[in-house]
Amino acid sequence: MTRQDIKYTRYYAEVMRMLTSHGLLVGSYDAAGKANLMTIGWGAIGSLWGVPLWTILVRPSRYTYRCIEHTGCFTVNVPTERLAMSCAVCGSKSGRDTDKFAACNLTAEKGRTVLAPTVAEFPLVYECQVVHSNDILPARLADEIMSGAYMDGDFHRVYFGKILSVRAAPDADELLRQTGA
Amino acid sequence: MTRQDIKYTRYYAEVMRMLTSHGLLVGSYDAAGKANLMTIGWGAIGSLWGVPLWTILVRPSRYTYRCIEHTGCFTVNVPTERLAMSCAVCGSKSGRDTDKFAACNLTAEKGRTVLAPTVAEFPLVYECQVVHSNDILPARLADEIMSGAYMDGDFHRVYFGKILSVRAAPDADELLRQTGA
Repeated sequence: MTRQDIKYTRYYAEVMRMLTSHGLLVGSYDAAGKANLMTIGWGAIGSLWGVPLWTILVRPSRYTYRCIEHTGCFTVNVPTERLAMSCAVCGSKSGRDTDKFAACNLTAEKGRTVLAPTVAEFPLVYECQVVHSNDILPARLADEIMSGAYMDGDFHRVYFGKILSVRAAPDADELLRQTGA
Repeated sequence: MTRQDIKYTRYYAEVMRMLTSHGLLVGSYDAAGKANLMTIGWGAIGSLWGVPLWTILVRPSRYTYRCIEHTGCFTVNVPTERLAMSCAVCGSKSGRDTDKFAACNLTAEKGRTVLAPTVAEFPLVYECQVVHSNDILPARLADEIMSGAYMDGDFHRVYFGKILSVRAAPDADELLRQTGA
């Protein structure tokens, strides 16, 4: 898909809506170079240390954790409503034993600026390089978060990914602004 | 100022533009109940653990650090271009020995949902309750971030503040969308 560079602030409301409804897909490569995908329903976009960043949370048990630790890169891929179903498939299998792209009928494209794959069919993609990571600290979590997200432990690593590229399809306005079924 | 509740995603581009140009003001109370302000030029807005959040960074040397550690609350206040000058004053003095609100000719209003003051004159205010905090880890920082932000150490604490209220003035559209001088 031919895409054009856009500002990281554009489509924010649409991205948060999709993040918190169907989810977005995080792309990464494993040590063997196999493209992997993980569904996320949580994340933040901002400017820290003077650079635009995506903040994502990844549990150590996830295959994506191993991938990002290896490459230091990830992508965030925003689907259309129609393609959002692929996120559900991605959320129910592990990249350890599944080719997520094939399972979702999606195509992996090489990132332009980072060592991570983007989803060719999706209208909006961010390429991110990890500039910092730290960890969720159990002792400092509010009770509501602890009971809602960490009853089984597996506390997230927080990845701060500098956004090196944001590209959108020419018809992203229409694709992202439509309301879901 | 009479304000109305809005979605946390609204005005995102305007908020990021102000954050990265003039800065925003973080409001907090100290242990004696004195209202304090700190200028921030970094931050992120997103949805983590299913709740909307502001992520801000505060150095342990700052008076605001002591305030937030005490109350577990803060506000983020977005100025107009005209009032943005107050941020510069706030950034050059410490709340330890200065009444920041008085020094900036600003009025402290009690937050509606949190134990932190909002800036009465500003058109857009977020009220946040800390649900997690962790720390920047020197060993995991990219060189560019380390040399740009931490040559003197004083590594930030990262506060994840659940947004309990976002309120905007009726003319916030006009006030926030105007371009600066």
